[in-house]
Amino acid sequence: MSALPAEIIRKKRDGDRLTPAELKSFIAAYLDGGVADYQMSAFLMAVYFRGMDEEETAAFTDVMLNSGSVVDLSAVPGIKVDKHSTGGVGDKVSLILAPIVAACGVPVPMISGRGLGHTGGTLDKLESITGFRTNLSLKEYKEVLAATGCVMIGQTAEIAPADKKMYALRDVTGTVESIPLIAGSIMSKKLAEGIDALVLDVKTGRGAFMASRERSRELAQTLIRVGKRFGKTTTALITDMSQPLGHAVGNWVEVAESFDCLRGKEVPDLMEVTYALSALMLRSGGKAVTIAEGINRSKDAVQSGRALAKFREVVGRQGGNVEFIDHPHTYPVCKHIIHVKSPANGFVGECDALAIGFASILIGAGRATTDDAIDPKAGIMLLKKCGDRVAKDETLATILTDRAETAADAQERVARAYTIAPDAPKPVNLIHEMIDEHGVHEW
Amino acid sequence: MSALPAEIIRKKRDGDRLTPAELKSFIAAYLDGGVADYQMSAFLMAVYFRGMDEEETAAFTDVMLNSGSVVDLSAVPGIKVDKHSTGGVGDKVSLILAPIVAACGVPVPMISGRGLGHTGGTLDKLESITGFRTNLSLKEYKEVLAATGCVMIGQTAEIAPADKKMYALRDVTGTVESIPLIAGSIMSKKLAEGIDALVLDVKTGRGAFMASRERSRELAQTLIRVGKRFGKTTTALITDMSQPLGHAVGNWVEVAESFDCLRGKEVPDLMEVTYALSALMLRSGGKAVTIAEGINRSKDAVQSGRALAKFREVVGRQGGNVEFIDHPHTYPVCKHIIHVKSPANGFVGECDALAIGFASILIGAGRATTDDAIDPKAGIMLLKKCGDRVAKDETLATILTDRAETAADAQERVARAYTIAPDAPKPVNLIHEMIDEHGVHEW
Repeated sequence: MSALPAEIIRKKRDGDRLTPAELKSFIAAYLDGGVADYQMSAFLMAVYFRGMDEEETAAFTDVMLNSGSVVDLSAVPGIKVDKHSTGGVGDKVSLILAPIVAACGVPVPMISGRGLGHTGGTLDKLESITGFRTNLSLKEYKEVLAATGCVMIGQTAEIAPADKKMYALRDVTGTVESIPLIAGSIMSKKLAEGIDALVLDVKTGRGAFMASRERSRELAQTLIRVGKRFGKTTTALITDMSQPLGHAVGNWVEVAESFDCLRGKEVPDLMEVTYALSALMLRSGGKAVTIAEGINRSKDAVQSGRALAKFREVVGRQGGNVEFIDHPHTYPVCKHIIHVKSPANGFVGECDALAIGFASILIGAGRATTDDAIDPKAGIMLLKKCGDRVAKDETLATILTDRAETAADAQERVARAYTIAPDAPKPVNLIHEMIDEHGVHEW
Repeated sequence: MSALPAEIIRKKRDGDRLTPAELKSFIAAYLDGGVADYQMSAFLMAVYFRGMDEEETAAFTDVMLNSGSVVDLSAVPGIKVDKHSTGGVGDKVSLILAPIVAACGVPVPMISGRGLGHTGGTLDKLESITGFRTNLSLKEYKEVLAATGCVMIGQTAEIAPADKKMYALRDVTGTVESIPLIAGSIMSKKLAEGIDALVLDVKTGRGAFMASRERSRELAQTLIRVGKRFGKTTTALITDMSQPLGHAVGNWVEVAESFDCLRGKEVPDLMEVTYALSALMLRSGGKAVTIAEGINRSKDAVQSGRALAKFREVVGRQGGNVEFIDHPHTYPVCKHIIHVKSPANGFVGECDALAIGFASILIGAGRATTDDAIDPKAGIMLLKKCGDRVAKDETLATILTDRAETAADAQERVARAYTIAPDAPKPVNLIHEMIDEHGVHEW
């Protein structure tokens, strides 16, 4: 490249705009070894402080996207739509949503990630289904999608390798929490999947990576602008992640809760978010005109059993043991079951998603470092959630773990995650707003 | 260390203070390989944006200082005083100053650097004296100092190796221009020399690394605070570097100009700065009570020939050919001598130090990259300086080089460095202010 790496770094450091050509040559040189890791990390830190404008973010996404294969799904009929969540606790929405949307006739090619920090990952949850293969080749990925209308895998070596290399670097250099870097990382992977449209679940609140509403909205708007530049309709919901979604936090326990929901169980917060997102996906996929229509079609897919049948079909296609779907109680159980009791009569005022997320790492349901193994059966069952009336000594939550040594610590963390108030708390708005390329809309 | 490297980086990134223990463990881990280059460079960029407070800067300096040997000069009688310049063009002050101060009875243990960017380096200049050894061992360093009262060497492997490693990283990651990092780098090396007191020449103006007065003052104050914490009296002058100092820019030509000054030649700007700094050194070294007294003693050392004799003695002790001191005209000369003429009648309004510095790199007197060899005899002689009256076609400057291919470019750069005005410019204040631990003082 013409400019020296240090000159590009200084330019960004000093707040000047980088041209698409400069960004492309810098990142291309990084992949070739002409820019060292230590130069890239200094650059990423400069981006953390200076940001990137729309054109820079698009160029950055484009280089990462084109560092690998861009899957061609044109042979699969229909408008392919995926969903991406910025990460939450108890967020098993993808597991319920993908079969619903596919059952309604919109193909869902889904490439998911693993748990990150205190949040869970769809990939880890799917792998708790014995035999389920998330490491399909791109050829198998296309075949499963064509056959079932739904496929759920992990990032392959062919998908955005530049993002993979840079993400690993960001993780250890304190440069994760930057909106343009997050946007480039998410969008390069999603665009590489071969989608036509994307629906985003941008979490906000204590259990989200972006705790503030303003930053969550900024991230959503950045993702939507990048999507638009690449010709993909992108729509976002800003949803609350102050308490975990649903009752189960872990891997197998979340899969089991997803089956229950697909069987028609009413888990209000979880299904409100799921139906909202599936309605947007059906609208983007041309199978619903209004959001209300999308929600009705989604509910019908659940009530008719079509969504559960679709999930069963996908699990079978990807090598998973469907016996566990039909008979979840045959799954192995944890050695230790610890109850967390309410210290008082009253109402649950808070159930802190961040604290529950960290407790779930302790008991083996998440990773403290990327090399850690996950115990798929470990989890936390939240019997009581915000607004629920509780009596003193009534069980608030149950911890399932094989790790006796962490039980007391986890129990204390879960206990402290709850606050019990004398009066019922004001209900929290679960879906804050919808954002698309036209602007911000009330939900 | 207890905190993960990424946690330390994030803490600095988020603007939190690092404890001395955190800084020490982070840098110690860097030297041990527990913190990777890519983590250090992200950290350095975070420091660039967030700065360091006084305690952090002191801890940072302390780790770098103690990463190597701290020379014990207690066997050498007297208060040992050194001078450090932040770097300029034509800045041969050290070559004149050190013999003057040593001739007045204050021992000067001087560890200097090479040219950096557009600025020259004392080490490169000394090495233009055939045979002069700048790579003495610390044992020889002490012996020459004890014998002559003056020694001039380069940074050895034992002196602040952490600084050496980090400086190389900063150079290629756009993290040089940070006041706490500059302060830590300068002070760790100077404190390791075994000095008792330090005098700083902090340059300001277009030819300086800190172009603004405010930033130069901030750097000086930071250096003084660090010095005080380590029990070393530190005094600074803020001096102008908008035009080069003296008439010669290069290596041998600057040494020859230094001999001339030690022989009593009047080069007003150069000697004004030299005498001011030497007076401060004599005051710190207990050989003058007032600055006026220090200046008088310094002038006397020159006029009596004692300073020249001292320089001759040091050159001889360090292996240099003293013939060249006695007969400078026997030194090899360049193949090409190019004159830059005045385009008009008038006065020299500007003689841009930055442009002259870059021209000197082109002709072989400086380095474009750290591996470049220097031509010791190449240089630029500035016959006219700011305020001088000139006639059309009168020679402003003469370029001495062996590189015929760069002559035209250098000639144009030097010509453009000069502006010729119809009226005499307002005289520039050469010494802006003096700063010590008590505050900022008019000079």
